[in-house]
Amino acid sequence: MKRYLITGFSGFVAYHFVKELSKLDHEIEILGVSRTMPNLDIKSEGNLIINFKSIDLRNENEISGLLKEYRPNYIVHLASDSSVGYSWQNPVESFNNNTNIFLNLIEAVRMHKIPCRILSVGSSEEYGNVTESELPLIELSPLKPLSPYAVARVSQEMMSKVYVDGYGLDIIMTRSFNHIGTHQRDNFVIPSFAKQLAMIKLGLQNPKIIVGNLSIIRDFVDVQDVVKAYNMLIESGRSGDIYNICSNEGSSLSDVLNVMKAYTNTDFEIEIDSNLIRPKDNLKIIGSNEKIRNEVGWSPEINLKKSVENISNYWINVVKNNASC
Amino acid sequence: MKRYLITGFSGFVAYHFVKELSKLDHEIEILGVSRTMPNLDIKSEGNLIINFKSIDLRNENEISGLLKEYRPNYIVHLASDSSVGYSWQNPVESFNNNTNIFLNLIEAVRMHKIPCRILSVGSSEEYGNVTESELPLIELSPLKPLSPYAVARVSQEMMSKVYVDGYGLDIIMTRSFNHIGTHQRDNFVIPSFAKQLAMIKLGLQNPKIIVGNLSIIRDFVDVQDVVKAYNMLIESGRSGDIYNICSNEGSSLSDVLNVMKAYTNTDFEIEIDSNLIRPKDNLKIIGSNEKIRNEVGWSPEINLKKSVENISNYWINVVKNNASC
Repeated sequence: MKRYLITGFSGFVAYHFVKELSKLDHEIEILGVSRTMPNLDIKSEGNLIINFKSIDLRNENEISGLLKEYRPNYIVHLASDSSVGYSWQNPVESFNNNTNIFLNLIEAVRMHKIPCRILSVGSSEEYGNVTESELPLIELSPLKPLSPYAVARVSQEMMSKVYVDGYGLDIIMTRSFNHIGTHQRDNFVIPSFAKQLAMIKLGLQNPKIIVGNLSIIRDFVDVQDVVKAYNMLIESGRSGDIYNICSNEGSSLSDVLNVMKAYTNTDFEIEIDSNLIRPKDNLKIIGSNEKIRNEVGWSPEINLKKSVENISNYWINVVKNNASC
Repeated sequence: MKRYLITGFSGFVAYHFVKELSKLDHEIEILGVSRTMPNLDIKSEGNLIINFKSIDLRNENEISGLLKEYRPNYIVHLASDSSVGYSWQNPVESFNNNTNIFLNLIEAVRMHKIPCRILSVGSSEEYGNVTESELPLIELSPLKPLSPYAVARVSQEMMSKVYVDGYGLDIIMTRSFNHIGTHQRDNFVIPSFAKQLAMIKLGLQNPKIIVGNLSIIRDFVDVQDVVKAYNMLIESGRSGDIYNICSNEGSSLSDVLNVMKAYTNTDFEIEIDSNLIRPKDNLKIIGSNEKIRNEVGWSPEINLKKSVENISNYWINVVKNNASC
């Protein structure tokens, strides 16, 4: 039976990744770790035996002890302070909770000589300062990180390469574009919109929503497609290689908001909060998924409209349940 | 009177940088910080008022408190675990003592809104995996870091740019090539050679020296020239810009050893220690100093032969003094 260590276990990507593993036809043992207990509904059932341990990955000794004991076959490293906005407010904490925690993890694998495959999740933010002519972004595009978060992700990726080439670790790297889906926390932009619209629909908020810069364009991909890609990369990705995970299409935040507005049948004013505008931002990011499509056979299956509808439904339910508590 | 904060104060670069400041014709206040008391001979005299404080830059609170109180006009950040070899043995510690300490420093400047100019020292190692056709390296050459140390330096540099562009800090960056000179610790290769030859010359070691890969080619520059460049950059470098500090010439370790052998008039066998061969190494690194030459007016004045002679004399004296203690 294969053993998976999944970090960031209380996050929404872990939730969906476990759902993905539950579709496989063999038994899997999972040790989920994160700083806080997951409040999402994840439990042992079907082919999955799941345990959870609370751990702070910034603590080298804790993670070293854990790996020495658990010796996983796969490490799916989902732990991250992944908000660009948060990283501008707390650059040191963001850096520690991205680069340093990853470094502690791979160093423990090296020290204890654990023969395992590691999935290192990176971000489209690594590409940074991009001109129109450079789109769509391919894995060989230059990296010009613009935010503390983006720097942290590039650092993580460079360190992965050193550990593969210099120490022989087995690490597959992604640059995951903006993934969206149910169970994401509402300090991210799409769930923040969805939650506000749900409140308006249910008469719990005045018909006004607060937004940042709506003109920025991102390549959105549904988290259910993302975790499928992660699983396929673990199975057949090439060690030391980097893979874009994206849809090949760009949509503005304004586009997303309009899809959501139409689906929820709400009407509202828009107020711009300058605190939500970041010091520096990439106006347009669109990726190419040609590499992962050709090498691994992955392509996204859920389009933006479907994805946004799922998210809207999810938040309407969350808001309803909270209101009735 | 201008206030300088100099980190890495117990290192050999700080020693030479203070000598450089002592040549200026105005009074300067210096606060030197490092983890250990400097054992080099640095004291208040002439135009310099020097204080020292022991501090661990990994401790965010310590450095924050210090900066809040001292509010320097200039920060010359020389603290670094700058050994590539050491970084392969202790990648986490190396990363912490390069990237994280720098990040703590600039974050404290940001938090306390200190209007100061910061010199961020980087390394030629950042260029990494270089082909012959890419030489000499210019500041726009791609970065392909090969070692944990190199990754740490690239991370530091990327974060510098984010703090300049995103938060408006005033940071000048260098990529300093292999600087050599007196007072450097003998865990670096050139002083290690010089010390061994001094021991042989004085009859304190069998005529055999232990080396790593002698064929690697580096662009060596005397530390006295390096600190002159640092001072000139602080005076007239451009914030947010990166400057190579190098000689434009490559010499193999074998070349250096031959100059040293001729000067000290010693003869010896050479033994290769495979522990001194690194997992990955750049075989040849030569830089172009055109940018700093044109923009700041700096060029190196001490050639390799003179530099190696100074180092040989220094180590003969050190070994003599130790032997007579």
